[in-house]
Order: sequence, then structure tokens, then C-alpha cells
Amino acid sequence: MAPSSVTVTSRFHESITRNALRSYLAEFISTFFYVFLVVASQMSSRKLMPDASLNPTSVVVVAIANAFALSSVLYIAWDISGGHVNPAVTFAMAVGGHVSVPTALFYWVAQLIASVMACLVLRAFLVGMHVPTYAIAEEMTGFGASVLEGLLTFVLVYTVYAARDPRRGPLSSIGTLSVGLIAGACVLAAGPFSGGSMNPACAFGSAAIAGSFRNQAVYWVGPLIGATVAGLLYDNVLFRSHPTDSTRGEGIGGV
Amino acid sequence: MAPSSVTVTSRFHESITRNALRSYLAEFISTFFYVFLVVASQMSSRKLMPDASLNPTSVVVVAIANAFALSSVLYIAWDISGGHVNPAVTFAMAVGGHVSVPTALFYWVAQLIASVMACLVLRAFLVGMHVPTYAIAEEMTGFGASVLEGLLTFVLVYTVYAARDPRRGPLSSIGTLSVGLIAGACVLAAGPFSGGSMNPACAFGSAAIAGSFRNQAVYWVGPLIGATVAGLLYDNVLFRSHPTDSTRGEGIGGV
Amino acid sequence: MAPSSVTVTSRFHESITRNALRSYLAEFISTFFYVFLVVASQMSSRKLMPDASLNPTSVVVVAIANAFALSSVLYIAWDISGGHVNPAVTFAMAVGGHVSVPTALFYWVAQLIASVMACLVLRAFLVGMHVPTYAIAEEMTGFGASVLEGLLTFVLVYTVYAARDPRRGPLSSIGTLSVGLIAGACVLAAGPFSGGSMNPACAFGSAAIAGSFRNQAVYWVGPLIGATVAGLLYDNVLFRSHPTDSTRGEGIGGV
Amino acid sequence: MAPSSVTVTSRFHESITRNALRSYLAEFISTFFYVFLVVASQMSSRKLMPDASLNPTSVVVVAIANAFALSSVLYIAWDISGGHVNPAVTFAMAVGGHVSVPTALFYWVAQLIASVMACLVLRAFLVGMHVPTYAIAEEMTGFGASVLEGLLTFVLVYTVYAARDPRRGPLSSIGTLSVGLIAGACVLAAGPFSGGSMNPACAFGSAAIAGSFRNQAVYWVGPLIGATVAGLLYDNVLFRSHPTDSTRGEGIGGV
Repeated sequence: MAPSSVTVTSRFHESITRNALRSYLAEFISTFFYVFLVVASQMSSRKLMPDASLNPTSVVVVAIANAFALSSVLYIAWDISGGHVNPAVTFAMAVGGHVSVPTALFYWVAQLIASVMACLVLRAFLVGMHVPTYAIAEEMTGFGASVLEGLLTFVLVYTVYAARDPRRGPLSSIGTLSVGLIAGACVLAAGPFSGGSMNPACAFGSAAIAGSFRNQAVYWVGPLIGATVAGLLYDNVLFRSHPTDSTRGEGIGGV
Repeated sequence: MAPSSVTVTSRFHESITRNALRSYLAEFISTFFYVFLVVASQMSSRKLMPDASLNPTSVVVVAIANAFALSSVLYIAWDISGGHVNPAVTFAMAVGGHVSVPTALFYWVAQLIASVMACLVLRAFLVGMHVPTYAIAEEMTGFGASVLEGLLTFVLVYTVYAARDPRRGPLSSIGTLSVGLIAGACVLAAGPFSGGSMNPACAFGSAAIAGSFRNQAVYWVGPLIGATVAGLLYDNVLFRSHPTDSTRGEGIGGV
Repeated sequence: MAPSSVTVTSRFHESITRNALRSYLAEFISTFFYVFLVVASQMSSRKLMPDASLNPTSVVVVAIANAFALSSVLYIAWDISGGHVNPAVTFAMAVGGHVSVPTALFYWVAQLIASVMACLVLRAFLVGMHVPTYAIAEEMTGFGASVLEGLLTFVLVYTVYAARDPRRGPLSSIGTLSVGLIAGACVLAAGPFSGGSMNPACAFGSAAIAGSFRNQAVYWVGPLIGATVAGLLYDNVLFRSHPTDSTRGEGIGGV
Repeated sequence: MAPSSVTVTSRFHESITRNALRSYLAEFISTFFYVFLVVASQMSSRKLMPDASLNPTSVVVVAIANAFALSSVLYIAWDISGGHVNPAVTFAMAVGGHVSVPTALFYWVAQLIASVMACLVLRAFLVGMHVPTYAIAEEMTGFGASVLEGLLTFVLVYTVYAARDPRRGPLSSIGTLSVGLIAGACVLAAGPFSGGSMNPACAFGSAAIAGSFRNQAVYWVGPLIGATVAGLLYDNVLFRSHPTDSTRGEGIGGV
């Protein structure tokens, strides 16, 4: 039985590797299209109304694009990579022990490359338009914007945890939809104040292509802290796993 | 066996207490973010268009924020606290015997503190913006506004009862979504007339921070009556529990 | 055993009657709130922008109100009355043999009274506003408007039949939502041309309170024909019941 | 047993044929109403605001109509024809071996006739309005528009494949909804740039009735390539069928 056990082991390793690569590809595809659709909708509303920053319709356009796009890109990645599509989610999952640190790093790389490429494609094909970056309202401080983005990322990641919880019963059918809808509400609430990014990858990609990393820290610090607090609170206080609830670990983790 | 039964009893009590505290925390989190997102979306549309009260886009912004936010905050609290997120729902549940009076009081405290804190955070960070309160159109009487808010709360709470009913079959998957969507429709219908609060916590928090309790009774009397009538009608007439349907009691109750 | 069989029979009759009355009440509640929310959203957008008929935002307001409200009022009535909430649906169900003619008549009465009462409440409390009626664009003929309303009602009722079909599998979870969404799309498509009523009760109630039955036939003839064709096509061609598929009859019927 | 086996064979053939005809009819009905609602919503926003191409509200109208209509027309055709409603989806399914080439051809014929008829009805009844065709923004090249449409069709078809996958678990309940939502996000993102068709049938029907096939190739080449790549990637890389997963083949195929 020794030879066959070797074969089994090598196949197991191969399978792990192949599944991991599939996860990175799924994260890449979902993040690419999320950033592509969100940034393009911002450009779309600016093309139709050059002073879009003064028009409430533009925030409706971006919020609905965010809600609809996030619901669907989570939907297509949910069973492959776990549907992070957001470095803040990956960070919280790594801190909570749901994914390993190397896996989290590969996820981050896939997400950031996807975001940069999405913005690059937009700049290449939507000639004459600028790729917009997230901006903070004049009367807000950078600290205030970071707190705001952190709070929004908290509720987003909390919803992701609730959606992945295997104990939800029939409500697990609309998990990806609920995450998308709360993201849309967050954009409506915060769009004119801090931009409503809630996703460091989205802020990074547009900044990289626009060539302006101003305020970039705002869109990383707040969301990473908010996401981590949400994850720890959910895991340890709200809906604590029982020791016998062994399905939980694999229910939340991606790979 | 006496000693071990004591242990069991104390553990049981401890567990009850812990679950109850988790429920209060879940109500706090969901109400905080519901009020935060709804009030911020009102501020958001005012920032983009200072005369927002004259623009139909602002009612679209607030209605969609309400629908998306409520769907998702109910989603995350549904299996922990029962997903009230509204003192009127808690009141109806207490009158109908689904939650005990002490529990209902703790829920109210959690909901009201959450709402006040959400508005406080908004005032602290969105510098230079006023926290808006619900307003009644000039041509309406306070009585008319209260009836309107009561009718809207009736259909909202009726939908909550239908969504929690364990006899719904496959439709129970979209219970939280259906409640959120009817709330959005109610804001579109009543926004310019009575504000479309349907939630005394939301009206209380913004009034406390804005420092104006004008018309506050309108947003309590109508909704509490509407919610109670909806609950009693649903329980006793429309979808009466059969004596053998013992799962009903725990299906509706929160804790 | 004779005496007990008498008791059983009388209880059976009583149960039928009680269930039937519950169905009429459920139709009343759902139709009342559907008409209330749709007509109030029309009044709402007119209040915010008196020349609303010239503004595309007003059609967004009414369409979203329609989609969200219909999804939810169908949700709450689905398991009680079958969730018709529309005389055209009831008519098609009666022609197809899914409900008896007397039941259909009681449904119509409940729906029409509910619609008139909803508009009456709106006129009583929204002082100074006119209850709007459905209008046909100048360049359209009454015949064209009736065909348009008939086509829209066709796809609406077809979706109702698909949503009620017990053979849908997991998709049956989002049946009520799918019906609501198609109604919203229909309003966006036809709002400025024929009004996008698709529901004779809605047109009747607003006309009765506004005191103008102009073009009322348009909103009855087209929808009743469209609904009936949709029902017959679905039952007999698209998704024909197999002889052994005995669950179908009760799956579609209301009472 | 020979005679009865002949009977069985002929019944089998008859059944195949009848099911196939039902599929074509289902594709016809769903495509007719999808094109009808999308094109009518474009006409609707133009009627309300003649310079609609300069207004962001018009893109909201068309995007929501697209999302809501596509969700529901997929819903009603999902279990009959597989819910393609798009020649690009059919093309990808044929390349991937999920439907036979003759079936794909019949699907195309049904989809294209449905689209032309929908636009014909709109031109006949919405007197005085032009049937709009998809237009490319001045600063974009035809190649850029085709790449953009191809990318959007990629994510749309990828979502269709994910929605049809029998291994999705509870998320399969919201498959049709997720496809509709991503289509809405795509219109918000690309509407002012390439029109956001993602469906050659839609572009063909409006062009045929408007009498202008300018740029028609853009709306065929990009989407057909994008759809095919999405299908092959999903089948062979992301969510590859295991040899023992025999349910997959029939899960994706239409007829």
C-alpha cells in the first residue's frame, strides 16, 4: 500500500495547489470586475454631468452600481475563493485565523493587481476621461474620513461574516445579496463625505492609475481596523462557535 | 445527582444571560448602523443639493438607503436578537407575548442608545452639517402625519411577522429582504409628507442630537399603535397558530 | 359514526369559510397597501416637483415604489390568499379554473374596496394634493395604450404563474421578488406612455376618488385580456401539468 | 417487446420535439419582453427629457429596467429553455458543448425574431418616438467599444454559468437575480460609452427597426468573444466538472 499512498499524497498536494490557484484567479476576476464597474460608473456619471460632484443623481448611480456589482461578484466567487474581493476582508480573515498568512498575501496580490488592471483598461479605452480617485469633503479631516470608512467597513465585513455563517438556515440563500445591499447603502451615506470606498483595493487601483496617492492611508487604516474588529467581534462575542461546531472553520475560510 | 443538577441550572442561567446580552448587543449594532446610514444618506443628499427638500432625487437616495440598510441589518441580527431594530416592533412583540416586558425594555434601551450614538458620531465627524430631523409637510396636521406613520408601520411590522413565520416555506429565505423593500417603498410614498420614519428610535436619536423634539409624539404614537394592531391581527386573525403548532412561539420571539 | 361525521362536515365547512374570509382580508390588506404606496409615491414626486410629468426622476420614484411594494405585499399574502392583489390575476385564475367564480368575485370586491379606501385615505390626509389618475400620452391612441397595458400585464401574470409553480425548485424562494421587479421594469418602460398600471384595481380606485373615469376601459380591457392569455399559455403550452402532477391544481389556486 | 419499444421510441422523439418547441417559445417570450422593456425604458427617459443623453437619470432608468427585467425574464425561462435570452449566451453554450448546434441555431432565430418584433410593436404603438439604437461615445473607437462590450458580456455570462451550476447550494436560489443585477451595474458603468448592450439580439432588433446597422459589428464581435471565453474559463479552469460529476452536463444545458 506504500506506493499508492505516495500517489494519494501527491495528488492531494496537487489538488490543494490547483484549488489555491483557482482561488487566486477567482479573486482576480471578481475584484477586477468590481473595481471596473464601480470606477466606470463614477466616470459614467461624470461624463453625463461634468459637475457630477454637485448632483445627487451621481451618488445614486455609483451606489446602485456598487450594490449590484458587489452582490454578483461575490456570488460568482463565493464557493471558489470564499468571496473576499476586498483586502480588508482578507486581513480580518487572516487575523481571525480563517485563512493562513501566505494565502492572505496571495489574495492581496491578486486583488491589488486586479484593481490596477481594471483602472488601466478604463484609462486605455475611455479616452479623454480621467480615472477618478476617492476624495474627502473639504470640511472633513483625514482622521474623520478614516473613522467613517472604518465604520462602514465594519458593517460590511460583519455582514460578510454573517453571510458565511453555516448556521444561518434559509437566510444563507441571500448572503451575497445582503452584503451588496449594505455596500450600496454605505455609498449613499458616505459618498459625498469620504467617497465610500470600504475597499483598499479599489482606492489603490484608481490612485495608482491616476498617479495620486493623496489620502491613500485613509482608505487603508480605517477599513483594515474596522474589518478586523468586526471579524473578532463576530467570532468571539456575537455568534461564537461552539467547540463541537467543527464545520465553522471551513465555513468561513476561503481556501 | 443533586450537585450536578445545580451546576446544570447555573449554567443554564448563565447561558440565558449570555444569550440575552448578545441579543442586546446585536440590537445595538444593527440599530446603530440603520440609523447611521439612513441619517447620513439624508445629510448626503443635502450636501449635494442644499435645497434637497425640493428635489425628488433626494427621496430616492433616502429610500434606497433605507431599503438596502434595513434588509442587511435585519439579516445580521435575525438569528441573534430576532431582528427588531425598531422600538415599535419590540412593543408589538411584547404586547403579543413574544418577548417578556423586561426583555422589551432592554431592547428599547439598546435601540435608543444606539440611535443617539449614531447621530452623535455623524455630528462629530460630518463637520458643518446639521443632523436632520423628520419634518411634517406644512399642509398636514400632526394627527394626519401620525396616522400616515402608523399605517406605514402597520405594513412594515405585518411584513416582519410574515417573515418570521416558520410556516412560510421557501419564501422564508427572502424575509429580511421583503421587510427592507417595503420600508423603501414607504419612504418613497411618505418622505415629503411625514418623513417616512416608521421607527421611533430613528426619530428620537436625530431629535436628541439636533436638540429639537418638535412633533416627536407623532413618530411614537402612530408607529406604536400601527405596530401593535399589525401584530395582533397577524397572530389572531390572519395566520393564527394552531394549538399543535408549538414551534410558533419561539419562531417569532427574539430572545 | 354518523354523528361524528356530521361534526366533521360542519367543522370542515366552518374551516373553509374561515379560511376564505382570511383570504379576502389578506387580499384587502395587500391591495390597500399596494395602491396606497404606489399612488402616494406619485403624489410624493409631484409634491417635490410640480412638473413631475416632465422629469425622469419621477418615473424612477414610482417604478421603485411599485417594485418594492408589490414584492412585499405579495410576500405577505402569498400563503394566505395566493397573493393576487390584482383583479387581472384573479380573472386569469378564474378562467383557468384555479379559483371558483364566486371566490373570484369576492376577491374582486375586496381588491376594489381596498383600492378605493387607500385613495380615500390619501385624499383625506395629504391635504391640498390631488389623487392622480393614470394618463395616456397625447400621441397615443386609447387602443395603443390598452395594447401596451395588456402586454405588460401579460408578462406580469406570466411571472406570477411561474412563481407559483410548485416545480420551480430553489428559484421558488424569489418568486414574489421576481414579480415585483418585473412590475418595476414595466413602469419604467411605460410610465410616460400609458402610466404603467397593469392593475385594474389601482386604476379604478384612483379614478373613483379623483372623480374621473376617463380612459378607465383602457386599464381594464387590455390587462384582463393580457392576463388571461398569459395564464392559458402557461397552463396549456409552456409548462403543462402532467396528468400525474396532482399538486399543481392546489399549487396555483388561491383559496 | 419489439412493438412496445417502437412506441417508446416514438414517444421519446415526440417528447423531445415538444420540449424543444417549448424551449424556443420560452426564449421568444423572454427575449421579446427583455428587449421590449429595455428599449421602451430608453424611449421613456427620452420622452421625459429630450436631451436624455446628457442626463445621468436616464442611465439610472435604463439600468434599473435592465436589472429588473433581465432577472424576471430569466426567472420565467430558467427551467424551460435554460434562460439564455441572449445570442451570446447561446453561442458560448454551443461552443462549450452544452447545447447542440442545431438547437443553438433555433435559439438564435427565436431570439432575433423576438427582438425585431418587440421593437416593431414599440414603433407601432409609441407614435412619434424613434426606436433608439446603441451609440458609441465620440471619443471612443469602435475597437474600444467592442472590447468594453466584450468585457461586460464576459462577466454577465460568467455569472450565468455560476448561476446554473448545480453545485451552488443555497445560493442557487438567487441565480437569476444575480445575473440581472450584474447587467444593471454594467449599464451604469458603460451606458454613456458604448451603450451597455451585452446582448446582440437587443442591438440587432433596434437596429433593424431603426434602419441603421451602423456599428452593429461592435455589438456582436465583442459579446460573442467575451461570452465564449467566460464559458470556457468557467468550465475548464474555475469550476471544472469532476469526471464523476455527471449531473453537470444536464445542469448547464438548455434543452
